[in-house]
Amino acid sequence: MTSDGEEGAIRHGGDLGEARRLFPQAPEPWIDLSTGINPIPYPWPALEASAFTRLPARADLAALEAAAAQAYGARPDHVVAAPGTQALIDLIPRLRPPGRVAVVGPTYAEHAASWARAGHAVAAVADLTTEADVVVVVNPNNPDGRVAPACDLASAAAGLAAGGGWLVVDEAFADLEPVASLCGAPPPGCLVLRSFGKTYGLAGLRLGFAVAAEPLISALRRGIGPWAVSGPAIVIGRRALADEAWRREAAAARSRDAARLDALLAAAGGRIVGGTTLFRTADFSDAQGLFGHLGRAGIFVRRFEAAPARLRFGLPPDEAAWTRLAAALGAR
Amino acid sequence: MTSDGEEGAIRHGGDLGEARRLFPQAPEPWIDLSTGINPIPYPWPALEASAFTRLPARADLAALEAAAAQAYGARPDHVVAAPGTQALIDLIPRLRPPGRVAVVGPTYAEHAASWARAGHAVAAVADLTTEADVVVVVNPNNPDGRVAPACDLASAAAGLAAGGGWLVVDEAFADLEPVASLCGAPPPGCLVLRSFGKTYGLAGLRLGFAVAAEPLISALRRGIGPWAVSGPAIVIGRRALADEAWRREAAAARSRDAARLDALLAAAGGRIVGGTTLFRTADFSDAQGLFGHLGRAGIFVRRFEAAPARLRFGLPPDEAAWTRLAAALGAR
Repeated sequence: MTSDGEEGAIRHGGDLGEARRLFPQAPEPWIDLSTGINPIPYPWPALEASAFTRLPARADLAALEAAAAQAYGARPDHVVAAPGTQALIDLIPRLRPPGRVAVVGPTYAEHAASWARAGHAVAAVADLTTEADVVVVVNPNNPDGRVAPACDLASAAAGLAAGGGWLVVDEAFADLEPVASLCGAPPPGCLVLRSFGKTYGLAGLRLGFAVAAEPLISALRRGIGPWAVSGPAIVIGRRALADEAWRREAAAARSRDAARLDALLAAAGGRIVGGTTLFRTADFSDAQGLFGHLGRAGIFVRRFEAAPARLRFGLPPDEAAWTRLAAALGAR
Repeated sequence: MTSDGEEGAIRHGGDLGEARRLFPQAPEPWIDLSTGINPIPYPWPALEASAFTRLPARADLAALEAAAAQAYGARPDHVVAAPGTQALIDLIPRLRPPGRVAVVGPTYAEHAASWARAGHAVAAVADLTTEADVVVVVNPNNPDGRVAPACDLASAAAGLAAGGGWLVVDEAFADLEPVASLCGAPPPGCLVLRSFGKTYGLAGLRLGFAVAAEPLISALRRGIGPWAVSGPAIVIGRRALADEAWRREAAAARSRDAARLDALLAAAGGRIVGGTTLFRTADFSDAQGLFGHLGRAGIFVRRFEAAPARLRFGLPPDEAAWTRLAAALGAR
């Protein structure tokens, strides 16, 4: 089990303070490709003062959850909003007594870390299983993009639920992918997580959702508590989630970016492992050397302690960044 | 124990949807005096795009916590930021096994509700005690403004800590009051809560803090998890908490408002029970009648199920609101 220490900053990416410590001589501005966050954010509206000054009203939170339900194909009463998916990842392990938890991986490390912090015995497994009290699967998986077949998820959920167990499906990167989401009809014992900040490029807002049937959704709602989501997140989230046209255009444009990135990485000797529309993962014969080479060029990417041959690249935000990345990859 | 149901909307105030349901014929705009939130918000700065788009960096969160430490007279490593004090109120009861909890009251109802939700046996007590595993006290108290003497808090904390117990001191309304805060040197087993949104009039931002010594502060930090606080809250909170001049001026101006409100309420037959700089509480011979009279005039105040003779008034935001309140109170 990885600990929640200083190296977390590397594990998660997105913290340029860490990049600057590692590569103090790198040219500014940094190009941060260490996250899977859409680099072209949703054009958020100007906020009225009341978004800042007033305690968010129940009706506004309900409208946000209804917009999320519409976007995710879920029932509104199956959706609860949280201040970021991480808040849900932290909460869920505290909602049941310590037991055996299997995390399908390698995957995003916060799941295993959070279950372990709450006293559960956590094991990494390669595939979906029912030999545990709780199984966690990220779908599509981060960083390799592996998709869990819908029927495997359904049978795992059913097997776990029969023994009082849970299946946690983290669909953080599902918005722009053709994966079969469980949001429409979450089976008993199944908790689905959706992230807002990644797709909409607004990670600073802190907004995420859980989708589940009763009684799980009520337990999550109680656990998150009232007023957890900020006024700015409610206003912007509600608008963005209702904007189906923007989401479709973003999916198309970022897909083109992903293909362009794959081509660049392949030309630089990378073997594309997979990924999603918002990040691409590749193996290199000298990944650690490439990580350092890019870092010294002011380009921060994600590496993985447990997979030293692997690097993950987010999408460059603009042509200047594409040009710098291509030059750095070509100049080796 | 009060349940966390629909009547919560009345219990907490600040939800004009509830006011409009109760008084559908009332003139708009409503004057919301149902909260203890400063009606003159801190003049928040325009936000750079990165506050919305980037995952908050550790260094930014640390700078926010350092600003809070400075404002509260605490050590920076004794402070953890959360997305609102409510998130801490929800978290703390889950950090220890179910036990006996005494809440000094009557007081803000969310404390007792949250400990009960986590499986603790909760009793309301009139005064500080050590006859429990955990004691919760709001200082100054909401709604009556009662202040717990510093030496009573110290001896309660010591007595509880000797048995492995905790003293939770909610200093949500302490910023503008001459109360002896425990933030400077939180005793072992003592957890202090501070609210940002009330003093700064920015309740929509969702920002609050816990102050405690080790090992409690580390447990709180783990419980809140990374990235719980939004980018806008970090930027605005950091700026506002460092603005000592604004805080002093707000304390002076709101004190004048509180005195003006006391005079109005007394002239309307109210017996001032107490309160803080940001709200005043009074008993009336016909408090329920006055609640309805004000509601029909578009003025929403707080009533209390357990104290039907009592009403709590927040501060009017401008002269138009003062005039409407004075007219409504005079026209009975």
